[in-house]
Amino acid sequence: MRNFEFYNPTRIVFGKGTIKSLNRLLDKNHRIMLTMGGGSIKQNGVYDQVQAALKGMDVIEFPGIQPNPEYETCMEAVQIAKEKNIDFFLSVGGGSVLDATKLIAAAIDFEGGDPWDILSKGKPVASAKPLGAVLTLPATGSEANGNSVISRRATGQKLAFSSPKVMPQFSILDPETTYTLSERQTANGIVDAFVHVMEQYLTYDVNTPLQDRQAEAILATLIEVMPKVKADPNDYDARATVMWCATNALNGLIASGVVQDWSTHTIGHELTALHGLDHAQTLAIVLPAMMQHQRKQKAGKIMQYGRRVWGLGDIRDEEALIDATIFKTAEFFCETGCPTHLSDYNLTLESCLPAAQKIADRGEVLGEHRAIGKQEVEAILELAV
Amino acid sequence: MRNFEFYNPTRIVFGKGTIKSLNRLLDKNHRIMLTMGGGSIKQNGVYDQVQAALKGMDVIEFPGIQPNPEYETCMEAVQIAKEKNIDFFLSVGGGSVLDATKLIAAAIDFEGGDPWDILSKGKPVASAKPLGAVLTLPATGSEANGNSVISRRATGQKLAFSSPKVMPQFSILDPETTYTLSERQTANGIVDAFVHVMEQYLTYDVNTPLQDRQAEAILATLIEVMPKVKADPNDYDARATVMWCATNALNGLIASGVVQDWSTHTIGHELTALHGLDHAQTLAIVLPAMMQHQRKQKAGKIMQYGRRVWGLGDIRDEEALIDATIFKTAEFFCETGCPTHLSDYNLTLESCLPAAQKIADRGEVLGEHRAIGKQEVEAILELAV
Repeated sequence: MRNFEFYNPTRIVFGKGTIKSLNRLLDKNHRIMLTMGGGSIKQNGVYDQVQAALKGMDVIEFPGIQPNPEYETCMEAVQIAKEKNIDFFLSVGGGSVLDATKLIAAAIDFEGGDPWDILSKGKPVASAKPLGAVLTLPATGSEANGNSVISRRATGQKLAFSSPKVMPQFSILDPETTYTLSERQTANGIVDAFVHVMEQYLTYDVNTPLQDRQAEAILATLIEVMPKVKADPNDYDARATVMWCATNALNGLIASGVVQDWSTHTIGHELTALHGLDHAQTLAIVLPAMMQHQRKQKAGKIMQYGRRVWGLGDIRDEEALIDATIFKTAEFFCETGCPTHLSDYNLTLESCLPAAQKIADRGEVLGEHRAIGKQEVEAILELAV
Repeated sequence: MRNFEFYNPTRIVFGKGTIKSLNRLLDKNHRIMLTMGGGSIKQNGVYDQVQAALKGMDVIEFPGIQPNPEYETCMEAVQIAKEKNIDFFLSVGGGSVLDATKLIAAAIDFEGGDPWDILSKGKPVASAKPLGAVLTLPATGSEANGNSVISRRATGQKLAFSSPKVMPQFSILDPETTYTLSERQTANGIVDAFVHVMEQYLTYDVNTPLQDRQAEAILATLIEVMPKVKADPNDYDARATVMWCATNALNGLIASGVVQDWSTHTIGHELTALHGLDHAQTLAIVLPAMMQHQRKQKAGKIMQYGRRVWGLGDIRDEEALIDATIFKTAEFFCETGCPTHLSDYNLTLESCLPAAQKIADRGEVLGEHRAIGKQEVEAILELAV
């Protein structure tokens, strides 16, 4: 096991009817900016619940944050927040709204020049305004970590930053708010959470048997619950389970002491930047191809995962076991609602190869062995055609 | 799934050589009381590492905290800490030292009269001095929660309290500090962590498949790692795994949204108060008997645990499966080093029955169905003869 530090001070308030706890969680003296997405929360009653809980507080609204939230939008919010002396940000929506809110909260306090440097140059976040979240879309795990992924229209970039300063003070997770998600949003969330676990698990063994089993617990649960959510979008316990899985997938716990690999996400971000695919769709495309390409390097963990999560222990031949495990994974993504080939989204290999170049241009070499360079990314994309 | 709130702001610093991080974790202006146990840390080098990290800081020592820490001792520490204007407590030792430190940190700020009321009357902890821990004995999980169990010599009581105000600001977990634990301490720690999980798991199903698997992950890992630690007490990864299991067993995560039952602990505390048995020994005695007594009420979870954790899925007959599962559990405790019968400790049933009376005298009815009263506790003790 590697040395690690685990610190996660976000208060999770989970369950039916918990939006009203905003009233007790927020300081009455705050000047709050309510950050929001495209308006779905006005249709499903979440907005009204939030308004009721915030009654009498000093609140301004900043609606219109996109999926794959854009830097330009964040900077508009920063401008307004500065003018209005905002000292608390409340994100109401999914991971995109929350990711944007994290950048806004950090950028407003940023004194090192252009806040884009936080993303492009990894400049540290020395301070940030406090923030909280009402989560309506389980997927990114953003509700319990300091991560944020932001896109920049002008340059076609999609970059991430991470800082403990932007961990939400609290996150309210009411599974009932997810009843009205579209099939596509639900599918994306399940695939996103699943791949988050895989990126922290499917590397090489450094003697972390508890963390491995905690990761497998999330994977097995997502597999079990997916058909229940699809069969009945109003199944409270199934929705609650998906929501709690997504949080646990990226709250830092299963990352403790293990070796990680975020190459599927890195390649996926480029595919979104190039073609506007949903984040989870890119993960569903890249991960099975990644497993195929890295089948030797990741053999031990692929087989452990195949045996423990997919129950494939009867397959004695190791190559056959790896094949079956990759097949099961891709099949699960397809059944969830995210097909796994570029062609399923009418994309050609050629149109995706620039992803490899862009990663190489940043000087990034991916994978837990730092052995996935431009050629390897191209080969992975070829396997995903 | 039940509604829940999860909040755990303790910073875990885990791994080899991490005691030196005290220097960065502590404010140089603090007036620190170093709380310690019986002196083992002076033999195994931990004390020297702590001293080196605290060099130049304002520190006084309070040694001599007992296993099953005593209220009287805590009150001596409070007296000294008040005189010396202590504003930070650093616990160096196992869960007993840390539990005592929590009460000391709460009692020094307590304004509602006798601090014993925090334990005996459940008076709330409105504030407490900050505290941190260097943990040297994985067992209680006290390093990542707000729980504390304190004994009172004068009255033969052993009571618990819990408050977020006494959660450690940080806990340093260096598995190398556990190499010198005795076989008995190691065994006790494993059994304690195992039973913590069981008390949060072995109740009835409220649709918490992730939490169930997270609990099973800890159980399966403890079972797997126990023989490794016994075979080689200096096996770093095995020691690290036990340590991380013990923290995860009681950091609040597997308690989220589930139904809990702490009857084994409650009865166990009384056996310790009566006969001075080690805490884990009492749990090893009570849990198998509890499972036997509650085999109908807990049937579903016992069978799930038997199938998933012990691999007993081939046993089709439900009663036989429950029998085998209880047998496996008791056998595991015995092999770990904690025998499971009163007679193994030369105790008669008669000498233990007052435990049932004492619980009844407090008006407590135990179990997830609140159906384990005096008669039932007596029956459980009878099954444990």
